[in-house]
Amino acid sequence: MTTKRVLLTKLIFCFAFVFGGLAIAQAADPLPSWNDGKAKLSIIEFVTKVTKQGSSDFVPIDERIATFDNDGTLWAEQPMYVQLLFALDRVKRLAPQHPEWKQQEPFASLLKGDTKAALAGGEHAILEIVMATHAGMTTEEFEKIVKDWLATARHPTTKRPYTEMVYQPMLELLAYLRANGFKTFIVSGGGIEFMRPWTEKIYGVPPEQVIGSSIKVKYELRDGKPVLVRLPELDFFDDKEGKPVAIHQQIGQRPIAAFGNSDGDLQMLQWTAAGKGLRFALYVHHTDAGREWAYDRKSSIGRLDKGLDEAQKKGWTVVDMKKDWKVIYPIENR
Amino acid sequence: MTTKRVLLTKLIFCFAFVFGGLAIAQAADPLPSWNDGKAKLSIIEFVTKVTKQGSSDFVPIDERIATFDNDGTLWAEQPMYVQLLFALDRVKRLAPQHPEWKQQEPFASLLKGDTKAALAGGEHAILEIVMATHAGMTTEEFEKIVKDWLATARHPTTKRPYTEMVYQPMLELLAYLRANGFKTFIVSGGGIEFMRPWTEKIYGVPPEQVIGSSIKVKYELRDGKPVLVRLPELDFFDDKEGKPVAIHQQIGQRPIAAFGNSDGDLQMLQWTAAGKGLRFALYVHHTDAGREWAYDRKSSIGRLDKGLDEAQKKGWTVVDMKKDWKVIYPIENR
Repeated sequence: MTTKRVLLTKLIFCFAFVFGGLAIAQAADPLPSWNDGKAKLSIIEFVTKVTKQGSSDFVPIDERIATFDNDGTLWAEQPMYVQLLFALDRVKRLAPQHPEWKQQEPFASLLKGDTKAALAGGEHAILEIVMATHAGMTTEEFEKIVKDWLATARHPTTKRPYTEMVYQPMLELLAYLRANGFKTFIVSGGGIEFMRPWTEKIYGVPPEQVIGSSIKVKYELRDGKPVLVRLPELDFFDDKEGKPVAIHQQIGQRPIAAFGNSDGDLQMLQWTAAGKGLRFALYVHHTDAGREWAYDRKSSIGRLDKGLDEAQKKGWTVVDMKKDWKVIYPIENR
Repeated sequence: MTTKRVLLTKLIFCFAFVFGGLAIAQAADPLPSWNDGKAKLSIIEFVTKVTKQGSSDFVPIDERIATFDNDGTLWAEQPMYVQLLFALDRVKRLAPQHPEWKQQEPFASLLKGDTKAALAGGEHAILEIVMATHAGMTTEEFEKIVKDWLATARHPTTKRPYTEMVYQPMLELLAYLRANGFKTFIVSGGGIEFMRPWTEKIYGVPPEQVIGSSIKVKYELRDGKPVLVRLPELDFFDDKEGKPVAIHQQIGQRPIAAFGNSDGDLQMLQWTAAGKGLRFALYVHHTDAGREWAYDRKSSIGRLDKGLDEAQKKGWTVVDMKKDWKVIYPIENR
C-alpha cells in the first residue's frame, strides 16, 4: 500500500472506532439467548464489577482467567460422552485388523452391538477401549482421525453433527468474557487431543488454552524425521481433584471464574471461589428433558449431586437450563 | 468519563495512531543491541517473510508460536543454574529444622561449605536437594519463598540480582516477535514455579506461557479451605526429548521458531525446524569470556556439542555472543 492509502485506511478504521463503538455499547445485549433472571444478572454483575477501573473489585486484565468444563457445560454429553462414541466407532473401524477382539472383552460385546455389556466392566473397560483406539499412531495422524470423524459422525438421537450440539448461551458467555479482557480456558475430563482440533473454530478457544486428560507421548526420529508417538498409557486424568492441579500446572494462576455442570467440576469451582477478591462459580443444571436432557443426582454421566448442595450452600450461580436459556443449540437461531 | 471526553480521548489516540505509526516504522531498529550481521539479518528476514500477507511463507497470527529455553538462552546459567543456587541457599536456611542433615549426604558436605563434594553425587544428589527444598509447602507459600529470595539474592561473581542477568538482545527479540503477532513461550528444564513468579515482569511472558519441569502437587481441603500441596516427587522433566513432548501437551501446536543454547534444546529445535513451511531455529553460543562466559562442547552446564554440529549441518542460526551482541545485560544501557 502507498503511504496515502495507509493513511486513508487508518482514518476509516478510526472513524468506525470512535463513532461505531458508542452505538454498539448502547444497543447490544451481550447474552441474547439468556432469559432475564438471576443467572444472567449474576454474570453481568460480576463482569461489570471486575472490569470497573477504580472499583475495589477491579481485577487487572492479565488476571482475568475463566475456566470451562466441556462435556455437559459447553456441549451435550448424553446419551454418552462424545469421545466414548468416537472410541466405539473406532473399535468397529479397526476390528478387521484385530481378529483377536472377537474373543476378548470389552471388544467382543461391542462388536456384537451390545454396548451395555461392553461398558459393564466400568472404568477398566473404558480405559481398554480408549487405549486401543487413541494410541499407537503419531499425534498428527490422530488429529486427522478426529477431524475426519467429526466431519461425518452424527449424534445418535438428533442426527446432527456433534459440533452443532454446543450450547448457544455458553458460546455467548465465552465471547462476552473475552470481550471484557478474559482469557477463556477449557478444563475438561475429556482428552486434550480430542478437543484441540476444533475448539478454536467452535468456541474461539485456541489449542494452548485447552486443558484435559492426556496419554503419554514419546519423541522419536523416524528416518531422521521427528514424530511424537501416542502411547497406550494414561498421563493425566483431568477430573475432580485433577482439575485444580492441572489449572495450576498449566495456567499457573487461579481462575477468577469457573463454569461446570457436574461433581467432576466441584474442586475446580471450590479452588476458584476460594481465591481472594470477587470470584464467580457457576453450575449448568440440566433440567430440560424436552429440548435437551434432564439429569442430576442419579445420573451415571455428568452426575451433579454434591456440587448442587455446595452451590446452594455457597450461593454459587445455578443455571436452570429450562428457565434460563431461550435457545439451547445455535441451530434454533437460524 | 462523559461521552464527550470518551470521544476526545479516542480522537487523540487515533491521531497518534495514524500519524505516529509511520514515523516509528521508519525510524526504529527492533533489535538495537544486535550488531548487524548474519544472525540479526536471519531473524529479521524470517519475521518479515512469515508476516507478509500474500507471500507463500505467510503464517496466520494464531500459528506464530515461538519457544525459548531459559537458562543460558534468556539469562545466565554460570557458574551454576540459578535454581540450584536457590536450592543451596534453602538448604542452609532450613538446616536448623533438619539436624539429621549433618550426617546425611549431600546435605552434610553442603553445610560444611563443600558444594563440589555435595554435587559429586550427580543427578541423584541434585534431585535430593531439590526435593528437600522445593516440596512440603503449599504452592502459594513456595511462590512467596521464590519472590523473597530473588529480591535479595545476588550472583556470586557479579553481585547483581539474578533478574538483571538476563540478556538484553533476547529481551528485544521477545518484544520484536510479540510486536509481530507471535506468542512467546518459555520451555525450560528449570522448574515452572521457580520461573512463573517473575517471567511476566522481566520477559513479558505470562504464567500460562511458561513450561518447565514440575513436581507433583496434591489438592487438599484444610479446614474447608482448598490448597495445593507440593509433593517430593518429580512430575515431568522438561529437557531433551521432554521439550517437544511438553510443547505438544501444553501448547498443542508446533512452534515456527525456537531458541536455545544447549544440547538439552536440540530436540525442541529439531521438532520446530521439521514442521511444514518456513521455520526458524537459533542457538545462542556462549563465546564471550570477558563480558559473560565462554563454554560449549565440554561444559557440564549448558553443554552445546551435538547441537552445534546439527546447527552447522542444517544451517540454523548460531549467535556468536561476542561478535553479535553489542551489550549483554540491560545494565550496560543505563
